Amino acid sequence: MPTYAEMGPGELAALKKELERAYEEIKARGLALNMARGKPAQAQLDLSMPLLKAVTSAEDCTSADGTDCRNYGVGFGLPEAKKLMAAMLDDEPDNVIVMGNSSLNAMHDALMRCWTFGTLGSMPWGKLDAVKWICPSPGYDRHFAMTEELGIEMIPVPMTDEGPDMDEVERIAASDASVKGIWCVPKYSNPDGVTYSDEVVRRLAAMECAAEDFRIFWDNAYCAHHLFDDEAEQDRLLDIASACREAGTEDRPFKFASTSKVTFPGAGISALAASPANVAEAKRRMAVQTVGHDKLNQLRHVRFLRDAEGLAAHMRKHAAILRPKFDLVSRKLEEGLSDVGGCLWSKPRGGYFVSFFAPQGCARRIVELAKEAGVEMTGAGATYPYGKDPRDANIRIAPTLPPLEELDEALDVFVTCVKLAYAEKLLG
Amino acid sequence: MPTYAEMGPGELAALKKELERAYEEIKARGLALNMARGKPAQAQLDLSMPLLKAVTSAEDCTSADGTDCRNYGVGFGLPEAKKLMAAMLDDEPDNVIVMGNSSLNAMHDALMRCWTFGTLGSMPWGKLDAVKWICPSPGYDRHFAMTEELGIEMIPVPMTDEGPDMDEVERIAASDASVKGIWCVPKYSNPDGVTYSDEVVRRLAAMECAAEDFRIFWDNAYCAHHLFDDEAEQDRLLDIASACREAGTEDRPFKFASTSKVTFPGAGISALAASPANVAEAKRRMAVQTVGHDKLNQLRHVRFLRDAEGLAAHMRKHAAILRPKFDLVSRKLEEGLSDVGGCLWSKPRGGYFVSFFAPQGCARRIVELAKEAGVEMTGAGATYPYGKDPRDANIRIAPTLPPLEELDEALDVFVTCVKLAYAEKLLG
Repeated sequence: MPTYAEMGPGELAALKKELERAYEEIKARGLALNMARGKPAQAQLDLSMPLLKAVTSAEDCTSADGTDCRNYGVGFGLPEAKKLMAAMLDDEPDNVIVMGNSSLNAMHDALMRCWTFGTLGSMPWGKLDAVKWICPSPGYDRHFAMTEELGIEMIPVPMTDEGPDMDEVERIAASDASVKGIWCVPKYSNPDGVTYSDEVVRRLAAMECAAEDFRIFWDNAYCAHHLFDDEAEQDRLLDIASACREAGTEDRPFKFASTSKVTFPGAGISALAASPANVAEAKRRMAVQTVGHDKLNQLRHVRFLRDAEGLAAHMRKHAAILRPKFDLVSRKLEEGLSDVGGCLWSKPRGGYFVSFFAPQGCARRIVELAKEAGVEMTGAGATYPYGKDPRDANIRIAPTLPPLEELDEALDVFVTCVKLAYAEKLLG
Repeated sequence: MPTYAEMGPGELAALKKELERAYEEIKARGLALNMARGKPAQAQLDLSMPLLKAVTSAEDCTSADGTDCRNYGVGFGLPEAKKLMAAMLDDEPDNVIVMGNSSLNAMHDALMRCWTFGTLGSMPWGKLDAVKWICPSPGYDRHFAMTEELGIEMIPVPMTDEGPDMDEVERIAASDASVKGIWCVPKYSNPDGVTYSDEVVRRLAAMECAAEDFRIFWDNAYCAHHLFDDEAEQDRLLDIASACREAGTEDRPFKFASTSKVTFPGAGISALAASPANVAEAKRRMAVQTVGHDKLNQLRHVRFLRDAEGLAAHMRKHAAILRPKFDLVSRKLEEGLSDVGGCLWSKPRGGYFVSFFAPQGCARRIVELAKEAGVEMTGAGATYPYGKDPRDANIRIAPTLPPLEELDEALDVFVTCVKLAYAEKLLG
């Protein structure tokens, strides 16, 4: 069968007519389906219910060192919570600060500290005429929103299948002292599902930066979020902190993680890991900002997840729920679009997304068509700085929330929308 | 009996010797007592234990509008949590944003928003050459630390027994556009236990401010923290938001409260209430900062405290524990110091502190003596901007944490230290 691009205009016009009919039929069904945000499904939430019973008596509220966690004190994390989050962050408990329910908030605060006060003696970024930021793209819209709000000029850098294009990253970081940082989702990246290769991590650690206070915001949101149980099928990420220590740039990375997609989104715990100097500075600032974070919730998490092994076992239960959904996406896209041509999509081994690349100039139209037919997708362009996908091609598919049957139906709609948009495009 | 100031030098020297002997005896006991921080006692924490069992099943996790609170969403507070916090803040739920576990953090974020972005179109405070702040003193050290960290020039204004000296406040606010705000703990103030009079509240609302974006940071930390059950013995605070609406300055106040000293310090919920324009602006910024706050903890609080009446009933249980401690402070100071002269102290009807005014120039020495004798007090000067009490007189007594027997012992030590320091002072 010819791909759409290979078809003659007559053949394609006939096909388009057929697709329009199919699309109208779908619309008539009045669907309300959602593949927009990376939210866990209800079955995943159910996995963590014992956590809510883990701290109910006064004895339960006492931490290993005897602290009554119902009262003020211990602003930077209980020792046992630091240990748990250190396991997630692949670091030492001493380098960890346990934070509140939102790692995004932890990143925001870290950015605002640099913005307002500078870091380790540097000029506050907010006092500079220009601040620029490297944004591997496609990437996470909430990262981009944060730098955009501060008026930071975002410089997109293409993603490859082993992380950001490091030639570009190195060139930009070395050439301009107003380039102060980079957003990274280094494992099972949002949305591409790419895990940075060892070489990429080492180059990020070792690269020359014109700004002495250049910072890598290392959002390891999916550090434990494998889709497969067999370690051979799991991605492995080199620790940026170790790489930076080796390269003599230990103050460069801020590492973040949370239990949002481990236990309960919005009711989890988050953490920052960084060099001793960075941690000391963050603690000094945080002591002015807050009385500390919720220690009872830290205890709940420690009692429920226990340690690295407990965490891994728990994540295998998540994977068992998610794997069929990602399989379904692969199968439906393969069946529906492999003959169409012009489309590409990721087959991640973890994380929360499938990254779909439509034929150039079609993404907005596809998302629009899907929306009209009752299927909510992440906005086209959302995966690029300023919402501007230069090729208008990338769409983030979030398959985790809907039950399998709904996902199946939503993917049928999506495939039809892709085909129709592509046919429209080719026919001009 | 003559007061110390009325004694002759010989009499006083003999008395001092006696006090030194008493002090050495105390020191020899190797005490370790604490009247430093406003922490609830264990018996108070025990009151809220049912809260920890209030949300344990999947059904428990569903809010009144059907939201599964275990997942992302509802960034600004569940409707029922807004209602509860509106009751604390004496405002409408629509004007409330429910926040995380620390109202200090909520204040910090509000300040940082003004600092970085300005407010309602004004120039970002961080871009101005100078920013100044009115600080009713004595006041709360953590407030002062926050403005100090930003390099804001703090202008102390004396407290009277009905709030800050409003002649001073009005003069300063009207005369200088770089004066951007004021810290207020308007009810059972920290440390004086003063509740602002209706006149003070109305003058704060109506006063002319040279800065159009002047903001009142209204930290109503002790809004529900009465020591007496009889309403006639409870202080009543005029709502600043209503007063500002009447005065045509509705965007002037940011009101804050939390359940830190209602349920569990560090594991409670906090809230901001403000004008519709302020709330809309805060929401816009917060949507970039965080995925939202812990909704399960909001549910726990709503289920446990229920409503204004439930809150009041719960606070009566706190009062029953706290009243004997405040009574003891009054009695011991009265017995120990009324004949000494030169000392003053507050007899609050709520809140967490007794404000003690030693003879001028004695506070540091008293706190030092107490510390050496094993009794930890809040640092002298901490209740003033930059830690500088111009009269070196104020000491904040925090009687809530220690059990009655320990408090009794600690107050004996304190009284001895006051006498000794005063005698030393008078003898030069």
